[in-house]
Amino acid sequence: MNKTNTELHNEILDAVYDAWTALQQQQPLVHIMTNAVASNYVANILLAANASPAMIDNPFEAESFTRIAGAVSLNLGTPTSEQVQAMLIAAETANTIQKPWVLDPVGYGAILHWRSEVTDQLMAFQPTIVRGNASEIGTLAGKQVTGKGVGTTLDSSEVYQQAQSLLNHCQCVAISGVSDFIVSNDYPVIQVNGGSELQPRVTATGCALGALIAAYSAVTTPVIAATAAHLHFAIAGKLAAATTQSLGSFNVTFIDQIHQLNLEVLREHADFQLL
Amino acid sequence: MNKTNTELHNEILDAVYDAWTALQQQQPLVHIMTNAVASNYVANILLAANASPAMIDNPFEAESFTRIAGAVSLNLGTPTSEQVQAMLIAAETANTIQKPWVLDPVGYGAILHWRSEVTDQLMAFQPTIVRGNASEIGTLAGKQVTGKGVGTTLDSSEVYQQAQSLLNHCQCVAISGVSDFIVSNDYPVIQVNGGSELQPRVTATGCALGALIAAYSAVTTPVIAATAAHLHFAIAGKLAAATTQSLGSFNVTFIDQIHQLNLEVLREHADFQLL
Amino acid sequence: MNKTNTELHNEILDAVYDAWTALQQQQPLVHIMTNAVASNYVANILLAANASPAMIDNPFEAESFTRIAGAVSLNLGTPTSEQVQAMLIAAETANTIQKPWVLDPVGYGAILHWRSEVTDQLMAFQPTIVRGNASEIGTLAGKQVTGKGVGTTLDSSEVYQQAQSLLNHCQCVAISGVSDFIVSNDYPVIQVNGGSELQPRVTATGCALGALIAAYSAVTTPVIAATAAHLHFAIAGKLAAATTQSLGSFNVTFIDQIHQLNLEVLREHADFQLL
Repeated sequence: MNKTNTELHNEILDAVYDAWTALQQQQPLVHIMTNAVASNYVANILLAANASPAMIDNPFEAESFTRIAGAVSLNLGTPTSEQVQAMLIAAETANTIQKPWVLDPVGYGAILHWRSEVTDQLMAFQPTIVRGNASEIGTLAGKQVTGKGVGTTLDSSEVYQQAQSLLNHCQCVAISGVSDFIVSNDYPVIQVNGGSELQPRVTATGCALGALIAAYSAVTTPVIAATAAHLHFAIAGKLAAATTQSLGSFNVTFIDQIHQLNLEVLREHADFQLL
Repeated sequence: MNKTNTELHNEILDAVYDAWTALQQQQPLVHIMTNAVASNYVANILLAANASPAMIDNPFEAESFTRIAGAVSLNLGTPTSEQVQAMLIAAETANTIQKPWVLDPVGYGAILHWRSEVTDQLMAFQPTIVRGNASEIGTLAGKQVTGKGVGTTLDSSEVYQQAQSLLNHCQCVAISGVSDFIVSNDYPVIQVNGGSELQPRVTATGCALGALIAAYSAVTTPVIAATAAHLHFAIAGKLAAATTQSLGSFNVTFIDQIHQLNLEVLREHADFQLL
Repeated sequence: MNKTNTELHNEILDAVYDAWTALQQQQPLVHIMTNAVASNYVANILLAANASPAMIDNPFEAESFTRIAGAVSLNLGTPTSEQVQAMLIAAETANTIQKPWVLDPVGYGAILHWRSEVTDQLMAFQPTIVRGNASEIGTLAGKQVTGKGVGTTLDSSEVYQQAQSLLNHCQCVAISGVSDFIVSNDYPVIQVNGGSELQPRVTATGCALGALIAAYSAVTTPVIAATAAHLHFAIAGKLAAATTQSLGSFNVTFIDQIHQLNLEVLREHADFQLL
């Protein structure tokens, strides 16, 4: 007989505890190709979470590094021709050897043709998890959206139903917004609450979240990896905003909170529901 | 009959209030191509000021993104061949469709030939505003200067007269230094005071200022955009330095102050004069 | 007759005092080519130490800028084809005109072939100082090592003897780890103690250390430059960790401490011994 949502909620929460603990113990090597704006911040967030980030984004080393990494994170924020070559090699390699990899289709949409075409090529290599904002995921799922540059003009709650269609191409879709939505075939849609309205005012938080999902995906299932990373961010954002409302200080405190998360903090602050 | 400097001062200050208010309301999309050192910092400064930065610096998307952006900011700090192609496309597009764009000719001078030649090509597309340090602007204006790498060996007050000659190529020239000078045909030279001696000890503050000028240029005239951005920085720098004299903390507090600026703070601390 | 280790210790310490003082006075221009993760952080660390960093990493300006810089710092963290061309030009130029230059062979080893081959080419231009973690230096010295991506799987104390063999290719080898080891023909191996276990949890600290060694090498001998930079970092790390154990705050405080170092702090906290 089917489990109740309460049983599923507890099952997910226990799996998130295990994922966080495994991340601390294994400190998985994450092969990251991200944008120029995000690279330093992404590396610091992953180190704060106790993962081992390595930004290797040239085509000459992409295959060999994907083979030794625990997971791969590809982000289309500021692609260059050489980086795109590297991404295609890493995605194909990850797909071939069944290494978990996360695709963050930054700016996917009608205005930014080149990266959107590259994203379509990358989708063919079956990302384990696709994560993005509502405009990006909505457009990927075939919705007509007018994105504002690399930001979003949609609310995440408007697109999680359409996102179901992407499960033909990946195992999990994570949509970030005021609330976050984790879409998979394993569980009902998981809505993660928390964070802070200051989070979008710090650049590259979404990019860092994508890389953290990849880090968790090296130690657990795709849907738990996405949920654990989103909870990690939502809790750190909520606690940082409770400390300060000034943007520079918030950014510092947010990294403090990513670093200080533990099972007690998770138990007290993890806020999600099944839809 | 001509307005007195007091009348002009009040006129400028009122326009700066309106520009800051419009920036908060419109959160203009700014198309930014900047250097590897600056990109994260520039994005965070613009987000703190409530603009919408997007770093799109590939030649395949430069034209389409320039068309939807509110303004464009081009910075020559660490050019690559591909980024230079993108800059030339963005500058030509911006000039064609009369989109405001800011040129920051980092390192312009005798030593760095390549970027200086690229800068000369970009100047042909009539930047709306040219901003830089005294060595860069002085050399652009035909002065013989021996710059120290990408730093400056001149005081900004030494070059604002020569800068007048650049008004044949752009509508406004902004020279940053201990005091800043805004040169245009609309007003007498505007000298902006404030800031802190710690500001040049934080990398990419000048680059971020150029991008903030671009953000303001999406909502007001070139000379008011330059004045508003310089005042925004000068006030934040002065208030941050009043809080701490330690460099790491200063940088965090500076972003706090960029974020916290409002009409009251502007009214109390805006310090500029007409020459 | 030979000097005692106590005499040598005092001689080194006096030379470090002089090097720090010279750095404050001369603020040497450092020509830096580093990775995308590190560039902002490296520039801020060097500015905090009072050097003048300039990231010029294109092949068209590499030679002319190397000629005017006080020293050159090359870091293989995220090489691109164009940046590698620039590094080879800068290294050859620095070697030809006897300009001090530092090589940081990030990720050198069996997995990352391309950069390792580039590093071998760069080694032919006789770097003044080679600095890296134990896995990188050990592999360069011919030891069989299985590095973990760009991290290390060795303790620095395991490789400083092998590092002696690298003195045929450079004048000084600096190995960073829990303790740091400075290897040269001028002195017995210098072991630098201090720092904090939080330091490796902040990205690009090693990259910044390499660039700081280059800054010091513009004003003193290679072995004193390496020792001064390692002491500067070890003291700042120890004092920052005494202030906070939260990672985001640690990073801010670390820059504060790099900035606030002076002869008194050096005298009180410099901790090194001769082996």
